Order: sequence, then structure tokens, then C-alpha cells
Amino acid sequence: MPIRYEPDPEADPAGLTYTFGGVEPVASLAPGSALSTWTFDCFGGRVRSASDVVSEVCDPAYLNPQTGPFFIEGAEPGDTLAVHFVSIEPREAWGVSANVPFFGSLTATPTTAMLHPALPERTWYYELDLEDRLVRYEAVDSTFALDLPLDPMHGTVGVAPPLGEARSSLTPGSWGGNMDTPEMRAGVTCYLGVNVEGAMFSLGDGHARQGEGETCGVAVETAMDTVVIVDLVKGVPTVWPRIESDTHIVSTGSTKPLEDAFRIAHTEMVRWLAQLLRISEMDSYQLVSQIALSPVANVCDTVYTMVCKVPKSMLGDVGAYSGKHAELARLR
Amino acid sequence: MPIRYEPDPEADPAGLTYTFGGVEPVASLAPGSALSTWTFDCFGGRVRSASDVVSEVCDPAYLNPQTGPFFIEGAEPGDTLAVHFVSIEPREAWGVSANVPFFGSLTATPTTAMLHPALPERTWYYELDLEDRLVRYEAVDSTFALDLPLDPMHGTVGVAPPLGEARSSLTPGSWGGNMDTPEMRAGVTCYLGVNVEGAMFSLGDGHARQGEGETCGVAVETAMDTVVIVDLVKGVPTVWPRIESDTHIVSTGSTKPLEDAFRIAHTEMVRWLAQLLRISEMDSYQLVSQIALSPVANVCDTVYTMVCKVPKSMLGDVGAYSGKHAELARLR
Amino acid sequence: MPIRYEPDPEADPAGLTYTFGGVEPVASLAPGSALSTWTFDCFGGRVRSASDVVSEVCDPAYLNPQTGPFFIEGAEPGDTLAVHFVSIEPREAWGVSANVPFFGSLTATPTTAMLHPALPERTWYYELDLEDRLVRYEAVDSTFALDLPLDPMHGTVGVAPPLGEARSSLTPGSWGGNMDTPEMRAGVTCYLGVNVEGAMFSLGDGHARQGEGETCGVAVETAMDTVVIVDLVKGVPTVWPRIESDTHIVSTGSTKPLEDAFRIAHTEMVRWLAQLLRISEMDSYQLVSQIALSPVANVCDTVYTMVCKVPKSMLGDVGAYSGKHAELARLR
Amino acid sequence: MPIRYEPDPEADPAGLTYTFGGVEPVASLAPGSALSTWTFDCFGGRVRSASDVVSEVCDPAYLNPQTGPFFIEGAEPGDTLAVHFVSIEPREAWGVSANVPFFGSLTATPTTAMLHPALPERTWYYELDLEDRLVRYEAVDSTFALDLPLDPMHGTVGVAPPLGEARSSLTPGSWGGNMDTPEMRAGVTCYLGVNVEGAMFSLGDGHARQGEGETCGVAVETAMDTVVIVDLVKGVPTVWPRIESDTHIVSTGSTKPLEDAFRIAHTEMVRWLAQLLRISEMDSYQLVSQIALSPVANVCDTVYTMVCKVPKSMLGDVGAYSGKHAELARLR
Repeated sequence: MPIRYEPDPEADPAGLTYTFGGVEPVASLAPGSALSTWTFDCFGGRVRSASDVVSEVCDPAYLNPQTGPFFIEGAEPGDTLAVHFVSIEPREAWGVSANVPFFGSLTATPTTAMLHPALPERTWYYELDLEDRLVRYEAVDSTFALDLPLDPMHGTVGVAPPLGEARSSLTPGSWGGNMDTPEMRAGVTCYLGVNVEGAMFSLGDGHARQGEGETCGVAVETAMDTVVIVDLVKGVPTVWPRIESDTHIVSTGSTKPLEDAFRIAHTEMVRWLAQLLRISEMDSYQLVSQIALSPVANVCDTVYTMVCKVPKSMLGDVGAYSGKHAELARLR
Repeated sequence: MPIRYEPDPEADPAGLTYTFGGVEPVASLAPGSALSTWTFDCFGGRVRSASDVVSEVCDPAYLNPQTGPFFIEGAEPGDTLAVHFVSIEPREAWGVSANVPFFGSLTATPTTAMLHPALPERTWYYELDLEDRLVRYEAVDSTFALDLPLDPMHGTVGVAPPLGEARSSLTPGSWGGNMDTPEMRAGVTCYLGVNVEGAMFSLGDGHARQGEGETCGVAVETAMDTVVIVDLVKGVPTVWPRIESDTHIVSTGSTKPLEDAFRIAHTEMVRWLAQLLRISEMDSYQLVSQIALSPVANVCDTVYTMVCKVPKSMLGDVGAYSGKHAELARLR
Repeated sequence: MPIRYEPDPEADPAGLTYTFGGVEPVASLAPGSALSTWTFDCFGGRVRSASDVVSEVCDPAYLNPQTGPFFIEGAEPGDTLAVHFVSIEPREAWGVSANVPFFGSLTATPTTAMLHPALPERTWYYELDLEDRLVRYEAVDSTFALDLPLDPMHGTVGVAPPLGEARSSLTPGSWGGNMDTPEMRAGVTCYLGVNVEGAMFSLGDGHARQGEGETCGVAVETAMDTVVIVDLVKGVPTVWPRIESDTHIVSTGSTKPLEDAFRIAHTEMVRWLAQLLRISEMDSYQLVSQIALSPVANVCDTVYTMVCKVPKSMLGDVGAYSGKHAELARLR
Repeated sequence: MPIRYEPDPEADPAGLTYTFGGVEPVASLAPGSALSTWTFDCFGGRVRSASDVVSEVCDPAYLNPQTGPFFIEGAEPGDTLAVHFVSIEPREAWGVSANVPFFGSLTATPTTAMLHPALPERTWYYELDLEDRLVRYEAVDSTFALDLPLDPMHGTVGVAPPLGEARSSLTPGSWGGNMDTPEMRAGVTCYLGVNVEGAMFSLGDGHARQGEGETCGVAVETAMDTVVIVDLVKGVPTVWPRIESDTHIVSTGSTKPLEDAFRIAHTEMVRWLAQLLRISEMDSYQLVSQIALSPVANVCDTVYTMVCKVPKSMLGDVGAYSGKHAELARLR
């Protein structure tokens, strides 16, 4: 039986969690626990139709509320937190996306600062067909529509950062956070390095689906019902977040420029494969060069995220983190 | 019957083609012609075993020789050249890769200049099993080995650039060139904007396979036997190279930093889908945000290449370039 | 009479201030107060000779301690804090610099991740001649030596960031922080936007001098005796830190890649001059294009800082922030 | 007596030189020759008043015409060409600047591709007072005006590139080209590595003055009367362009992102000082970190240029290139 944690759907926005670090835990979990909870959408539920305009209905201080943080008993700096996603399901049969002024990859932003006026602000409303697993795209300037596959995921998953920092849930980094990768689906295990006692795990920012890069900065945003199993790999550090599915191992890196995010993710994979396959770093560099899949995660957040994926089928029998993913997957 | 063009395998390296632009055509082709030819590997055949060291056996002035250029009759600036790849097959049952000093994505380079000494120089020899479609990876520092899927492609495909430039075959750009994307497989059509009379099409740099990003800068390099059909889309310009397969449409962008290559590829896709689906640019931006696949092509060449892929199955019936891909695919 | 705040020179490193935000104030100051205090060097005084190696004597959790934060009475979000530097003087007649593994602009780092081993770790000891205003550079691998001009400054000056964040003192941003610009000399006024009640002003990281860019990441680091006057410009926001001297107005921007830091600093200057000179934004863009001085501040910290300087002599009579700099300069 | 080379002021635009490389020499010069010539402005003289709009009066294929190339007798790959600027004087008492659609540092461009419409196109006309050495800025949207110091320079100076390339005069690189640094004034010597027999030296793009960064992409553009002395340093290669004045030595680097241009310029300076001062590379890295001046040259061209400047007064007696600058300066 999973432990249930129920956020208050009527909570004052000011009372929710918007940072990784700097926040008191909402609950404590023993390693191995299953947690059943839900997350607000990134707008805190304030954008509910195509006529709700983000810059009017949302307070920029209260974007992307997280559920958590959860104190993981026994987690210490130098350990790895393993978060296995048992299920991720939209709470309602709709989602929203938007074009927000000066936010996104194909617009001037506060850091790619230019003299252009903002692109037009718009909101798109998506119907979700949870039975047939479809997301209904409807153009706003014409009657064009398309059915897209439902592919639920969490954009934001992380722990408290090191160095006493508290980081906005809008930002990704070595602690996880707002990585916005579609790889964070049900069925995967996310590995996060523990920086503070108790790890302080939070999650949020559910997407009914998103393209790689999250080009305009906003996916199909939805509140999510989610079940995870949280566990610890004691004494094994993890520098940048990693993900393992039944079919792939995935490393990540988050920074700017995007080639540096690529460099982080791919040095991480070079070192990971060298260790898993017991080959030299140069041999692993060569192997990664021939087998890596390198999709972008986001090019819209305050820093960008790249992933490096390798199909386990190409590697033979590898047991990352002593087989933790297979162990947790058996429990789901 | 394809027209046969046979490069001279014994040619003096100084006599081969190393630039897009600035070179006289080797032959002239009518639109709609099938061309059967072959390409040298990127080392001009000089690296043939794990004991051949690139910096010793290769002259840096003679890297990545191209087959061509071919003058396409009737091609004028403002047209699009369509190159359909009928087949791409390794000429021999081996390939090579290497770690070349100050070249690759995880090392200091002449432009990401640092004070580090070079990483160790190494050559990897790959046996190719052309029947079972396998590429045999063998570590050099241990006895570890793996079989990887054969997936032949051309790293370098392009035309003469605009503005009277002649550009090294080591560089990608709006004219194509050294994009190093694994999307350039048999079965796809590559669309290239024509900048000079006759287009001046060349190709080379065959890879038995490569990872996305071509992390160390060198794929499994092989000489290739290749058949293409070249055709023209008159009066339709193409700003950055595009690719169409039976399943996807693909836009590209090549520059640094990598987020700018992403921006090029994704603005191109936004504009392409707006035109194909007759939707507004903002509606297309939203759609791309939810459906784009955004794999890296290369992060190792003088500038980097990103692609943006969209599954045609999500779009309904779209006929890019008036259905040119389907038309050429029927001929193969 | 300045108010004196005396940090405890024997304080446990764990008890010092290492973040902007997330820390209780050490004292409260009324606007218009002069504050006399001192700051630790960036190593907390642990590197005292050429034989002290940073990675051995320093704990990475306790780098760049700040003096503060000071609660400024009446400061509210939307105000600007004006910090006038009356004097900045080295506390002792020596400073140190170092080459720290994987830190600096000409080396692989944790974010520009590569496979190179670290560059050699070294420490340089500098004698300071406070009378003749000289800094003595002595090579460590030979007997070469040079006298350089003393030019004391603070690398780190800032306030608490917005969005509930707490940011490491190793990082610069819109709140100021570790900008590492040699423009932060005695005689200038630094303008910082207030994000939280009380502003929470801190400073540290004294440099006897530094080159632009702080190429290796470490200047001539010294503890500093410093006197500032702190004041408020009520109701006037400041988005990115600005500096005014008797001769120049200076805007800043901190992010990566470096061209984005340039873009921030220069859009800020375009808007500042448009306002000061009552000209249109396009006219200001043109003017900035012909008169800006654009030195780098740092290319070594977690994000990079650019400044944009304009000589006041070119502009005629401009009174930024209602003449606050001149007003504070008269008090010194 | 300088040799006079007179471009044809009535030449058809198509007959001028727009690339470095790929062009036949216009004249041959012996090393040590003084050359007196003049250069067109970057618009080929087609923008002559505030009502001339660049996108209407200029053909994008014919921007930034160069005077040259000059074949330097005896110049071979591996040598350095030394170009001493004896004088650079505007040919007429006016200059022009402009805001050109999708060109500049604070706008979307073809490579920093975004969905914004272009910023407003504008032309600014500048009166030059060649006697009082002033440049008259006049706003176009109001009556505001300012006198700025005249500071004539060449934006574009270079030789033919390596690898058989021909590069547009709009682009900077290791061959020089469109570096757009205000350091290229009368009185300096520019050192350029020779890549092809005869070096093939050209110059153009005179500016009556420019800000660092050339923010909007267009300086105060003027035709120039220029006298240079060209000389060779035989057997001494130069990887990236360098400049020496009576007071400073300057290294450059041109690429994107801007931090990589910084890295090039500063590794070049580290190696240059190590050689000039006979100190180790680590000692030189430390010294550069404390004394470099690091102004931006351009953040608007197809790639960006950084310079690294060191005051000769700090170094003692150094004779770069065997004292070539002092030797040529004595001849002026």
C-alpha cells in the first residue's frame, strides 16, 4: 500500500513549494516506500481555458509549484536517491499550453536580451482522451486540429542542491529540477545525488506530452496523479541526474550554452559506460561516439538540458546501480 | 540505368575535391538522373588499421575528399535540388574511427581553445558484416567487443555556397556540407537550396554508423558505393537543408552555439509546418513545441548541426515540395 | 562617523555567510549610513603562501565568505540600493592567486565538461606595496618578476535574489554577487535592485588587482578594509546591477553564453541612455553602437559577466538616479 | 614614395572584391613597400543620406567591397605578414550608419533565428569634422545631437584563408577579415599568418569610429584614404591575427560562442607572453589573469571577435616579432 500524501487543492499559492532547498519537509519517507500523491500543473491551476492569459492570471512569484519536499530517512550527502515512477496519470481530461511573453526558445528572453517586442501571447486548450490515450491539438487562429499520442511525464523532479542554495523550480541543474525531458515517464527510475541530509525530494510540472526542446517553453500542462517508489543507493554518489528505463540508460546535463549541456551529458555517459563495461575512458569515448542518442530536453528554461541515451540492448547485460532499476520495476 | 561516375582510386590527394564552391564540375547531370558513384572515406583511404595514426598518415590539407561537384543542368539560384538516396553501401568490409588531437566534442579544440595537452591519439578498426548488417566494436585497451547495427549514411552532402564562398568539406552550413547527421540514410530525400548556376552537388564522408553528436568527431568511416537520383524543384527556394523520409520530415541548422543551431532548425520547422498545414505561425510554434524530435547531429565540426524531426504520421497527409519525395521514392 | 561592523576573524568557517539570500542579517543600517567593515579573502584566509594548495587547505563548501548580510531599513522590492564605495584597502601587505583544478576560463570545468586531466595546481604569492601602490608578480617556475599597479576592488557585491532563491557567493546574477569586474573600485556607486524587504546587502572577495575576464579564475585575493555608504532610491527598480563612477556609467549582465551577457548589458545601456537622454530606443541603440566600451568582467565563474561602459564626457550633463552618485560622492 | 593603387570609383559592383581567397591579385608588392590606396565604405557608396535605406539601395551580394588582394612577393605559408598602418583618413566629411533588418547583436538574426519581425530599419547620417576630429551624432526621432571623437579605423583587414577556402568579407576568422575592432587604427602593426603564396592581402570597411562590440552591426561607415607599409617576418607563423601599437600588444580570436573567442584570444596571449618573457605557460596564464584588458571587438558579424590587450609598460622591454613594429613605426 503506497503512503498517500495529499496536497491541499485550495492552498494559498504563497504556501506552496517553489524552490529546491530552503523549504521544510512536508513528510518523511523510509527508503523503499511507495508514495501516492498528486501535483499541481505549472500554473497552479489558474489557466483553465484558451481565454485565460498567463500574464494576467498568474503571479510570476508563484509558478511551477512542487509537491514536497519529502525527507528520505537515512539519505546523506554522497548517497544516490532512486525514484521509480510507477504511474503518472493526468488528473483531469484537459491540459493547457501558452505562449508567454519573453519565454521560449524562439523569442528574445530576459537573458537572450534583445530589443524586440514580445511575440503575441496565446493560450491553447487541449482535450485529453485518457481512454484512447490522445491529446487533442486545436489551432487558435483556424479550425485545424490533430490528435497526438498521450505521453505523460514530469518536467520537474529533484532534490535540495548543495552549497546551501535554494533554487527556483523553474531552473534545472545538478540537483535535477526543471529538466523538462520527456524521458521522465512512468516505468523509469531517476537517480539523483543527495546533497543534504534527507535529500528533500520534490516533483511537479506534469505534461500530458511535450516535444523535445519544449520549444515555446510550455508543454501540455496538467495536474498529475503520480505514484513513485523512493529508495536509496547508499555510498554511491551521482553527480548529474540519470534515468534508467527497461530499454535505455540516460545521462543528463543542464547548463548554457547547449553544447556545454551536451558535454556534461556525454562525459557522464563516457564515464558511466567505462565503469559498467570495465573499459578504458578512451574506449568508452569511442563507443559513445558510435551509439549515443542525443535528444534535447529543453532549450527554454533558465539553463538548457541535454540527455544522452544508450540502448541497453547494445550493451549486453549491464546492471547500473547494482540493478536498482530492475529491483524497483519488479515492485510496481 | 544510372549514370556511372567513377573517381580515380589512385588519384593524387591534391587532385581531389575538398571544398563546396570554387571547384570545376566533374560531370553534368540532367534533372531526374540517377547517379551511381562511390566516395572515399574521410581519410582518403590512408587509415587502414588500428596502427595507422591519423596525424601521421594524413595531410590536414587533404581531409574529407568529396565526389563531385556535379553540375545539375538547369539549376539556378532560387531553385531547390532534391537528392534522393537510393542506396548507400560500404565498399569494403571494414571501417575505422580515431581520436584525433584537439578534435571532438569532449576535448579542447582550436576554437574552444584551452591550455590542456591533447587527449591520447588512438585508432579503432571495425569489421563490418555486410550480410548480417553488423559493425564490430573492439576496445583497444582491453578485449571487450560488441556488435552494433550497421546503419550506413553520408556525413557530407552539399552544394556550392552563396556569396562567392568556397567552404571546406569539414564545415556544415546552409549549403549542406559536413552536417554529420545519421538521418542521411538510404531512402531519404535531401533538399538543398541552389546558390549558383548548376548547383554543384558533391557528397562524401560515408559512415557505417555514428552516434548522434558524433561525440569524438569520427564515426565508423568507410568508402561508400552510393546511388542517388538528383532532381530539381524549380522556383522553390530552401534556406537550410531539409530531409524527408517515408516517415519523417526533418529540418536542419548549423552554427554555434548549439542553441542557435536548435533555433535555426526549429524556426525552419515552424515555418515549414505553417505552410504545409496552412496554420498560423503561432499555431505552428505551439504544434512544434508538442511534437518535435530534436536530436543533435554533430557537436564536433567547425560549427554544430541540430535537426528537428516530425513524424508524418502525426500530421495527416502532407506533401512537402509537391510530393517530390514520394515521386522519387517510387523510382528507386 | 561610519558605523563599524567587525566580523570575527576566528569564526568557524561554517558560521560565515556563503549565499545571497537564505541568511539572517548581521546588522541593520539606516539609508544614508556609512559602514566601515572588512572582508575575508575568497579562501577565508587559508591560503597564505605559495606552498598552500587550494584543494588541500580549503573546503569547497566554504569558499568566498561574505561580510553581511546587512538589513537596509525601509528597502522594499521595487527600490534600488545605492552602495557608494568610499574606500577599499588591502588589510595586509600580501595577496595570493592560484590555479585551481577544473576552474578558470582556459580549462575544462564541471560545466564545460571534457575528458582532460586537470591543469597543474599552483599558488602564487604576491607582495603588496601599499605605499607605492604596487603588486609584485613573481613567477613560480623561474625568477621572473614584475611590478603591477595596485587597483583594489570587490569581486562580490550583492543583495538577496528574488523568487525565494539563495545563491552561492561563487555565482553572479541579477542580484549582483560574484561579478568580478575591476570596475568595482573605490569611488564608484553600485546600484542594485531590491528583491526582498531589507535588501540584505553583502560584500566580499577583495582583489588587489585583476585582469578583465579573471582568466584563470583567481585574482590577487586579499582581505579588505572597506567603507561604503548605503542609500536607497525609493520606487525606482534596477533590473541588472549598474555602476557609476565620476567618469562613466556602467551596465552589467551575467549569464552564459558570453554573447548573452553582452546582450543583457547592452540592452540595459540602450534603455538607460534612452531614458537619460530622452531619445528613442532605436536612436539609443545607434548611439550605444558608436560609443560603448565593452570589457569582459569574468569568464570563469558559474556564469559570465560583461559590462558596458559609456564615458559621461560624451553624453553631456546626465544625472542617473537623480544624481545619487554625485550626492554620495560629496559625502566621502 | 608609397606605391599608389587606385580602385575605380565607377567600377561595376560585380567587379569588386568581396572575398578573402578565390580572387586574382590586383597588384604585386615587394616586402617593405608602402602602399597608398583607398577603400569603399561597406555599402559601396550606395548609402549617402538618412533617406537611403540599406535593404533598398544595396544588393546583399555586394556588401563590404575590399581593396585588393595584393600579392606580397616572397610570402609563403608559415610566414607572417606585417601590415603597418601609417595613416587612415576619411575620404569625405560624412559617414553613415544604419539599422539593417535581422543584423546586429540585439536582434534576431539568420543564425540566432527567432519568430520576431525585424526591428525598424533606419539610416543615420553623420557629419565629420576632420579638422576638429569630431563625428556628429544626430538622432532621427528627435533633435538630440552629440559630438563624438573621430577615431578612424579599418573593420576588415586580412589575407587568403587556408584549405582552399574563399570567405566572405562579412566574416572574421584566423585569416583576419571582418574583425571590426577599433584597435585597427593608424599607428598599429597588424600581424597575419600567411596561408597561400603571396598572402593576398586586402582591406576595407573604414569606420570614422565604432563602439566596442559594434552593437547594431554598423559603425560610422566611411570611404578611407589609407597608407600602409607591408612587410614579411619570414619563417614565423601566426595562428590568429595580432596587433601591436606603441603601447599595447593585442591578440584576437573570432568564433562563436563569444566565450570561445575569448578563449582563443587569451590562450594566444598566454602563449605569446610565455615566449616573449621566457616564462612557463602556467606562469604566463597567471600573469594574463592579472593584467589582460579584454574588450569585445564585434558581436554582430557571422562570428564574433574578442581581443586581449596587454600594456607594454607592464612588461618591460619586449620585442615582439623581433621588433618589427618599432622598425616599421620608424619608417612612417
